[in-house]
Parts: sequence; C-alpha cells; structure tokens
Amino acid sequence: MALKSTDLNPHVVALAGGVGGAKLAHGLARILPSGHLTVIVNTGDDFAHRGLHISPDLDTVMYTLGEIANPKTGWGLDGDTFQNFEMMEHYGVAPWFRLGDRDLATHFVRTEGLKNGQTLTQVTQQLSKALGIQQSILPATDDSCATVLDTQEYGRLEFQEYFVKFRWQPTVVGISYKGEGEARVTDAALESIAHADLVVICPSNPLLSVEPILRLRGMREAIQARRVPCVALSPLIDGKAVKGPAAKLMGELNLDASVIGIATYYAGLIDGLVIDTADGDAVAELRKVAPALSLYVTQTLMETIEDRERLAGEILKWDIGGD
Amino acid sequence: MALKSTDLNPHVVALAGGVGGAKLAHGLARILPSGHLTVIVNTGDDFAHRGLHISPDLDTVMYTLGEIANPKTGWGLDGDTFQNFEMMEHYGVAPWFRLGDRDLATHFVRTEGLKNGQTLTQVTQQLSKALGIQQSILPATDDSCATVLDTQEYGRLEFQEYFVKFRWQPTVVGISYKGEGEARVTDAALESIAHADLVVICPSNPLLSVEPILRLRGMREAIQARRVPCVALSPLIDGKAVKGPAAKLMGELNLDASVIGIATYYAGLIDGLVIDTADGDAVAELRKVAPALSLYVTQTLMETIEDRERLAGEILKWDIGGD
Repeated sequence: MALKSTDLNPHVVALAGGVGGAKLAHGLARILPSGHLTVIVNTGDDFAHRGLHISPDLDTVMYTLGEIANPKTGWGLDGDTFQNFEMMEHYGVAPWFRLGDRDLATHFVRTEGLKNGQTLTQVTQQLSKALGIQQSILPATDDSCATVLDTQEYGRLEFQEYFVKFRWQPTVVGISYKGEGEARVTDAALESIAHADLVVICPSNPLLSVEPILRLRGMREAIQARRVPCVALSPLIDGKAVKGPAAKLMGELNLDASVIGIATYYAGLIDGLVIDTADGDAVAELRKVAPALSLYVTQTLMETIEDRERLAGEILKWDIGGD
Repeated sequence: MALKSTDLNPHVVALAGGVGGAKLAHGLARILPSGHLTVIVNTGDDFAHRGLHISPDLDTVMYTLGEIANPKTGWGLDGDTFQNFEMMEHYGVAPWFRLGDRDLATHFVRTEGLKNGQTLTQVTQQLSKALGIQQSILPATDDSCATVLDTQEYGRLEFQEYFVKFRWQPTVVGISYKGEGEARVTDAALESIAHADLVVICPSNPLLSVEPILRLRGMREAIQARRVPCVALSPLIDGKAVKGPAAKLMGELNLDASVIGIATYYAGLIDGLVIDTADGDAVAELRKVAPALSLYVTQTLMETIEDRERLAGEILKWDIGGD
C-alpha cells in the first residue's frame, strides 16, 4: 500500500474545495512535474447569478494554480477591479455576491461554453489552458449536484446564500446534496484516480467541499478500488478551522470538531492522516480510535508559498504505512 | 398647425436613434422643464450578447441625457474601464462588441428585469431613474422587432454584425424588420404622442433608426393623427452623414442621399424640415419637391453642448407653417 519514497515523480490526484484545498494543490503543482497532478474539484457550490454559471471552487483552484489569485482573500483575481459592481450598486442593485470585472470574464466564458454544449470539464480545460496551467483541473461532475443547508434560522438555504450572504452564521441542522443519486463523477476524474500513485484529500471542509465529491455516483467506489494510498489533511488545527465553517458545522451536526472527528469522518476511506503539530497530543487517542491509520504530524498552516511547497513535499516523501 | 411661439413650455416628443438623436434630445432636455420631454427610442438594434439584452440606442440616449456618456464616442460611459473585455481577450474570446465594465451593469440590470417579467419600458424607467434623468425615455416597443440587412458580400446580417463587426462597410441591398406586423408601439409612446405639442424626428438615420420606429404597429397612424406639428432634422449635411452609414445606405438603396432625399423620405409625415446652412442652395428645389413643407436653415452640427441647446431652442421657437 505504501507509496514508494523512491518514486519521485508520482501521479497525484487531489480532491479539493476552495481556498485551503487550492493552497495545497498549488504546493503539489509547484513540485510535481508538469502533468503529474490532477485536482478534482468540488462543484457543490456552483450556482447561477445574473444568468452566469459560477463555479467558486473551480475558479479558486484555477486562479491559485495559475498564480493570479488574490493573495489576501485566497479567491478572486489579484488586482481585479470592481467597476461593474459599483455601477450595480449605483443602480440600486446590491448583489451580495461581489464579482470583479476580470473575474466576470471567467463566468462569461464558462456560461457561453456550457450554453454551446460544452461540458463543465471541457470549459474548465479551455479556461485552464488560457491561464497557462500545466496541471489538470477537473470538476468532480459535469452534472448538477448542489449543496443545500437546512438552517435553524432561515430554513433551507442555497449554498451561496448560507456561505456568502449570511456569512455561514446560521445554525445548520442538516445538509443535503440536490442531485445526489443522479449526478455522476466524470469519466476523466475516474480515470485520473485509476492512474494515480497517490490520492490526497486536501485540507478542505469535509462536509461542504469533500462530501459533495464523495457523494457523486461512482466516486467512493473508485477511491475504495484504488491500490495506492489515500491520505487526508485535517482542515482543523486545535479544533479550529483555518478559515470558514468546518469546525462550527461539525459541532452543529454533532460531529467531534477535532482531528479525532476528522479521522472518524474519513474512516474506511483513508490510509493516512496529516495533522498539525498543535494536535500532537491527540496522537495517542487517534491510535486507539483508528489503529490502522498512518499519522503524520507537521506544520499544516500554509501562510506562504514555501509553506505550500514544504507541506506538499512532506506528503510526497511520506512512507505511508511505514510508521 | 403651427406650434405657437408663445408656448414656452411645450410637451415635446422626440423620435431618436443613437448618437445624433441623443444629442438633440439632450439639447431639448436641457431647455425644457422637467417632465416636458419624451424620447421614443429605436430598439431595432437590440440584440443578445453573452446572454445579455443590449439596447444600444436606449443606452446612448440614457447616458447622454444622464450626462455620463463618453464625450469622444457619443456612446458608452465616460471614464468606463475595460478590464472585463481585456480578460475576455486573454481567454482567447475576442468579442467584436467591446463592453465597458460599468456599461455591463446596465445590461445586467436590464436582462434581469426582463427575465423577471418587467417590460423594456419598465426597466428603462428604472435605469433612467437611477441615473437621475428627469425626462421620459421610452423604448418604441416592448416587443421584438430587429433590423436585419441583406448585403451583397455576406448575405443577411444581424444589425450589430453589420454595424459593429463589419463597421457598416458591406453593400446593403435590402433592409427588413424581423417582427414587423406583430411588434406594436407601446401604449406609453402612443400616449406621449397624443399629449405632445410638437413631434421631432431627430437627425438620426432614417432607415436604421427612424424607420424601425415608424414600422411598429400603430406608430405611423399615431403620428398622422396628431393635431400638432411634426418636424424632422436632416441627418445629412451636404450629402454626407455626420457619422454612420446614412448617406452610404441611402445611395445603396437608390434613394437620393441629400436633403431632397430626406424630404422625400418623410413626405406625408412631417410639416417642417430643418436643414443645415451648407444645404441652403437646396431650398429652391425643396420648395418644388415639397411645396407644403416648412423649411428652417441653421447650423445643425452639434459639436458642443451649447450647439445642442441652441439647435433645440431654435426648433422650439420656430413658427412652423409660418414661413
């Protein structure tokens, strides 16, 4: 099961959501040879806004791998302007989803491509190519499978309402995936997993970023059928999310908002778990809860590009199952 | 029939296309009391682009009356940026229709309004209000009636292909109006004509800007049923258009590209014609060709805002039929 530490040029498949996942994917992209990384990206957040098909996580991964992402927010384009948004406000239309002028072009091209019969996979490939991205970015599905949240305060919310409009403050009592049972993982994604030497579940929100990928028809089976290691990185450090609602949400849904909860959540799916040094104390309990799980303790916070590369490098050098 | 020169606060209805029409409408707007001007605008150029409903002439009139138009081009917004367009080019999508970032907001609001069941009249009212426009801007129709051109070189072209993509260089062998016979002038436009003290056909392209208005069901009858003067301003000066294809097009369709041709074109519809001093020589022949037509000779070129006001003022003071 172990990824040979001598295999310096593995083919890696990473499952990613937004900012956190994109950062690790970027680290992997920078140290792997061209064409050796495939990022399978969550599309559960996709939505229509002003007639445009917006894929927030795909954009974040594309912009990050293209090294044109806004370094402050992690999403959107570096140096983008907001003339269009300001004029919308002038018209008294105050859209809670603030789109940059250059960012809008991505949505235009995607929407037009889909309207012309291209798949989301094809459009993403076209956009990635134009952005000079050497690695393969794949939407997890070409079908629609939208994450919706049942909240205490507002009832059922679309993902972007919950996440952007209400800034993930409502209390979530349930999550569902509209399209589940129908939506299929793409053939391209399945193929990348079949040819992978390593599968990495990025430090993305398990419920909102990874689960929408795992719920797709064919996905869980494909990962389970692998003959190579699958490792996850905990998105929680000392029980807290780096950003976003991962910890809050796990608590609301009676999951343990800690590395123990993460290990439990991915039980049966992963061979290794990377946790932060801040969670070193949890190793003993993790060994009890998940005796077969390989553990790797390191600094997981990615503040700089060097952090991303270093973390990615440690994962690739890790002799999973050898501990 | 004469508009009393003592009536200093007439209600004026202007029929307008794009830049030239907008300039005169602006002059009228600046000297008439608030609410005394209604501009009925050509929508034959309207088209869909990137999923957006674009109304070029409505926008030009709105931006001009709102005093936010680009003073160099006459259309688009002053100081607008083109970040979105540049990014589209970066994606290898080279749209021949160059939309500004702020301008895009107008199309978003209009498209969304129409999608939500608003009429074009209602959306235009909403946009005008937000831009602080005191005068009434009305699309000639809420229906679709698109100007299409049969050309020698490329066969049938949509208006914007002909006008923007091919920069009106193809030779036109015929014009038709898709929707003619079905599309109706709006009730609001009819009402404004019924209450007008003066109807002005702006110096717009007769075939491409005015004819699409006149062809609407109910329009010609409404103007013919008026009990007030209707005057036109020649868009041609010394046989040439100030800008655009008016003269070229009239020639291609075997019409006389001169003030004589304009008088002939509007025969039976207008009581007065304003021509430029450069066409003073044509007065004698005009009197022969159209003996009942009042003529007014003045400087019609509107280079400054003062020109617009002066020309508008002369029209309002003109004792039509008194010559």
